Formats: sequence, structure tokens, C-alpha cells
Amino acid sequence: MSYIRCHKCDQHAAMRMKHHRLNLCAEHYIEYIQKQTLRSIKKYRMFTHSERVLVAVSGGKDSLALWDVLLTLGYQADGFYIDLGIDEGLGYSSKSRMMAEQFAQSKGARLTVIDFAGEYGLTIGELAKRTRRGTDKPCSVCGIAKRHTMNAVTQRGDYDVIATGHNLDDEAAVLFSNTLRWDTDMMMRQSPVLEAHHGMPRKVKPFFRFYERETAAYALLRGIDYIQDECPFAEGSRTIELKHLLNQLEDQSAGSKLNFYMNYLKAQEQKFFNRDKDEATRANLNRCLQCGQPTTAEGLCGFCRLLAQSQR
Amino acid sequence: MSYIRCHKCDQHAAMRMKHHRLNLCAEHYIEYIQKQTLRSIKKYRMFTHSERVLVAVSGGKDSLALWDVLLTLGYQADGFYIDLGIDEGLGYSSKSRMMAEQFAQSKGARLTVIDFAGEYGLTIGELAKRTRRGTDKPCSVCGIAKRHTMNAVTQRGDYDVIATGHNLDDEAAVLFSNTLRWDTDMMMRQSPVLEAHHGMPRKVKPFFRFYERETAAYALLRGIDYIQDECPFAEGSRTIELKHLLNQLEDQSAGSKLNFYMNYLKAQEQKFFNRDKDEATRANLNRCLQCGQPTTAEGLCGFCRLLAQSQR
Repeated sequence: MSYIRCHKCDQHAAMRMKHHRLNLCAEHYIEYIQKQTLRSIKKYRMFTHSERVLVAVSGGKDSLALWDVLLTLGYQADGFYIDLGIDEGLGYSSKSRMMAEQFAQSKGARLTVIDFAGEYGLTIGELAKRTRRGTDKPCSVCGIAKRHTMNAVTQRGDYDVIATGHNLDDEAAVLFSNTLRWDTDMMMRQSPVLEAHHGMPRKVKPFFRFYERETAAYALLRGIDYIQDECPFAEGSRTIELKHLLNQLEDQSAGSKLNFYMNYLKAQEQKFFNRDKDEATRANLNRCLQCGQPTTAEGLCGFCRLLAQSQR
Repeated sequence: MSYIRCHKCDQHAAMRMKHHRLNLCAEHYIEYIQKQTLRSIKKYRMFTHSERVLVAVSGGKDSLALWDVLLTLGYQADGFYIDLGIDEGLGYSSKSRMMAEQFAQSKGARLTVIDFAGEYGLTIGELAKRTRRGTDKPCSVCGIAKRHTMNAVTQRGDYDVIATGHNLDDEAAVLFSNTLRWDTDMMMRQSPVLEAHHGMPRKVKPFFRFYERETAAYALLRGIDYIQDECPFAEGSRTIELKHLLNQLEDQSAGSKLNFYMNYLKAQEQKFFNRDKDEATRANLNRCLQCGQPTTAEGLCGFCRLLAQSQR
């Protein structure tokens, strides 16, 4: 009986990547993901072995796989988990927190857990409800809150860089969303690396070239236990709709998603756009009077404004 | 019983345009399309009443509606039809030719018909087959041939400008296709107006802001008889797939397609891109040794190369 073979060792292929015309067995697939991640880290100068990296961990496949790869590659990678208090979906937050803690323990790695409600006096759901922003969908409030908390923790813990598990599907969907509106400010900010500015650490996305199914396969083949549920609030969100459309394109022509994102980066590098991404990020930023983090607003930043509103 | 009313006269609305939050009766809808076309022509300086316009007519709704609007607005608009000899689909070419001729006759307007096979010795289908380019789909060969023939006729007839019936769905699909690959050359060439260059006339798309259903509604309400079949070759083409995806976006959020295209033009105007569209169009063009039309190639242009190949 014929089966598909690994391009490296002729064994049964565990993973097929049509867009790269590459099929690999479990062992060579794991090696491939680790090597490609190292390549991205070096090519885009994300961080070095002497820098301290904080991995933003959600308990899902992407962030745990990323943490696993960084530890395997010998980086100084600590984890960081925010318990948002999302009890909807049969305890989404407590389940995902458990996954993060289990992983940290199994690796002997350091994990900082922030209890959002303990820190700020209310859960994400409550914050969204009280501020009447996204009463059906707290996703935008959640994004603001996570970014704020992440920045605060990195500064406290003296980290050089924050690494997030965003994969190609995530990045392509955001680029797609911004491009559909030609939101040029947002487009210019999109990059696998955002340099440190205003006392905020560098932010990097070492998995930006991997399809979601590739990070999932890595987690599975490495035996990483992760939370498989989507956040119960995310269901039906705009981003998920756009991912669905991009998947249709990918089905019609393998590699569409990768080309869309990589050719965008190439156009950036070749200065097709009239603005510099760092310039776009740094332009017109003030400091929040409450927390000191950078903000485009005058007075309070978006997060501190939300908190103030919630206390009225 | 309640029904949806015209925003102008309170009569029963014949057309609803969600993206504009505008409902109009037949009479006011027809007036709306004509006025908006005039506005586009003036805003983008497409042509004046003293210039001679050649309308590229396919026999479909868009081009016949455009010709109708231009005649109503008092422009010097002649029609031009290329009989491509597509006998597939129960006589697609002969049916669409009849529609174009009927319309011209009813308006007392001048129509030039070019019989492609008479002019070049073979039909489009034969040209595609003999050159083995798109044996299943002659669309790319057809595009090259139509552009070439159109340029040739405009020069012979001493026209200042070619007007085509491309609507928003067409333009958005092409922009989408180019953006998915970040084909920056093609992106820069996309515009409702391409200025004259190398002896080629100006090319304009006065319907670029209208959705396909809007031009169809105009044709129906004006009683214009047009060919409703798609070209039998176009079925399942990439462009049609992309239109389908854009329709899904439009269904999720009315106006998506219009915003995508119009915000792109705005980004162009605001010099978000590092290159000028006219510069992009004119760069590195030579003259074809056979026909004299501009080409990026050295020696023969794409069309003359195809003809030469077909004669081997």
C-alpha cells in the first residue's frame, strides 16, 4: 500500500504542507517548526539569547507551542497569563489557566499569573457591561485590557520583549480587515516586530509565518495539552468571519494566505508605502496621566478611561 | 399596508440601496444614476461635451446602460462592438451583437462593429486554442485581444476617449485580486481614469461607483434589452470567485465593497503609495514593431505575439 512519505527520511508523513509542497514525519515536522521559528527570530531581529522574553500565554495551542519552541531553543522565556474571569463556556478562564499552569510545571518554567478581577476589581465581562462597550461582545474592551496589563507586567518584571503566539491566520485576518478599509495607520503598524517605544517593550510574533493548522499540529505532535475551545465571546466575531473568507481563498489556491501576508511585508520593505512603520507607531503619542503608558488620547489612555467609566 | 417609500416623492420605492440608506422610485432612481454618472465624469475629469467618446459595448447591461446615460446627458458617444465569434452558449456573440445593434438603432446612435475573425482570420476561441494559452479559459487571451482592437479602432476613428462599463463589482474584484498578491504595479494602474499616453486614448470608467445590481436595475427600469447570459467562457473564473467572496463581505456589512474601492482611491490621492499612477503606467513602455501600440515587451506586443504564434 502506498502512503505519503516524509521528504527527509521516507517514513510515513504526519503533516502535509501543500503551500510549501512539503510533507514531513512527526520528528522532522517538529524540527522544521523549531528551525523555522529560529530563522524568523534571527531574520527579523526579534531577540537574542541574552535578552529576557515574556511569552503572553492564553492556554491555547499557539502560545503554548511558542513557549515550548522558545524553551527548546534555549531562550530565557518566562510565561505570563491573565485570568480574565470569563466563566462563560463552562469555565473558559479557569480551564485555560490550568493548561498554562500545567505546561509551566511540566517544563519547570516560570509563569506569572495576573488575576484581572483581583487587580482591577472586576472581570472583563463586567468591565464591558458597565462601560456599555460591546455588551454582546467584549472583544474590543478585552484587547485594550490585555495590552495594558501586558505592558504593565513587562515593565514591572524588567523584560526586554513580549512574544505573542499570533499565527499567519491571525495576522492575515487583521491585515485583510485593515486593507478592506484601507486603514493606513493600522496597516503601517502591522509587522512581526514592533520596536520598543515610550518605555514600552519590543513586541514580536515569532509564529507569524505558520498557518493555524501548523501550530496545532506542532502542539499535538509534541503532546502539549491546550484548551481547544474558542473564547465563548469570540464566536461570530468579524475576525472569525474574515478568517473564514481567507480559508476559502486558501482552498481555491494553496498559499494564498501566506502570499497575501508575505507580499505585504515585501511591499513594506521595498518602500511601496509612503510612511515608515516606526514613524507611524510613534507619531502623536502622549503619556496617560493615570498609568503613564503611551496613548494617542490626551489625558487618560483608553484603558484608564474604561476603568473610570466603570466606576461611575 | 405599509411599503417602502421613495425618499424624494413618497411613491413606492423601486430600488433600495442599503449602503447609501437610500430608497427611490423608478423615476427618481433613473435620475439618480444619470446625475451620479455626470458627477463622476466631472469630478474625475473624464471628458467634456466637446470630446468624442467611444463606448466599448458588449451587449450586456453595464455597457448599454452606460451608453444610454451618456446619450441622455448629451455627450458625443458612439458605440463599438467586437464580435469575438463565441458561438458556445447557444450563440453568445451573435445574441449580444444583436442587442448592441438593436439598442443603437432605437437611439439612432452610431455603432461600429468589428468582426474579430474577419479582421484577424480566427475567432477568440481559435486564437486561445492555437496558442495553447488558456485552452479551457481564453479569458486572458480575450482581454489582450479586446484591448488591442479597442486601441486600434479609437485611433482610426479619431476618438478622444474610450469609456467602458466596468462597475464597482468589477473594479473591486480586480483590486482585490491585485491586493491579495500585493502586485503593486497592477495596483497603481487601477483608477477610474487612465490618461492618454503613447498615442493611446484616455480610458475612463464612469460607472465605477455603481454596484452591479444598480446598473442592472437601471437597464431594467429604462427598458433596455440586454444579454443576460454570462460569457460561457467566464464561468468559474478567478474573478467570479473573488466577486463571490466580496459579496459575502457585502452581505455581512452593507457598503464594504464601496468602502474598499473608494478608500483605496483616497489612499492613492493622499499619496499613501510611494509611486504615481501615471508614472507606473508609462514606465518602461516600448512600441510594438508590428502594430505600433505601446508594450512592456521588446519587439512585438502581447497581441501581435499571439497572432504570430497562431500562424505557426
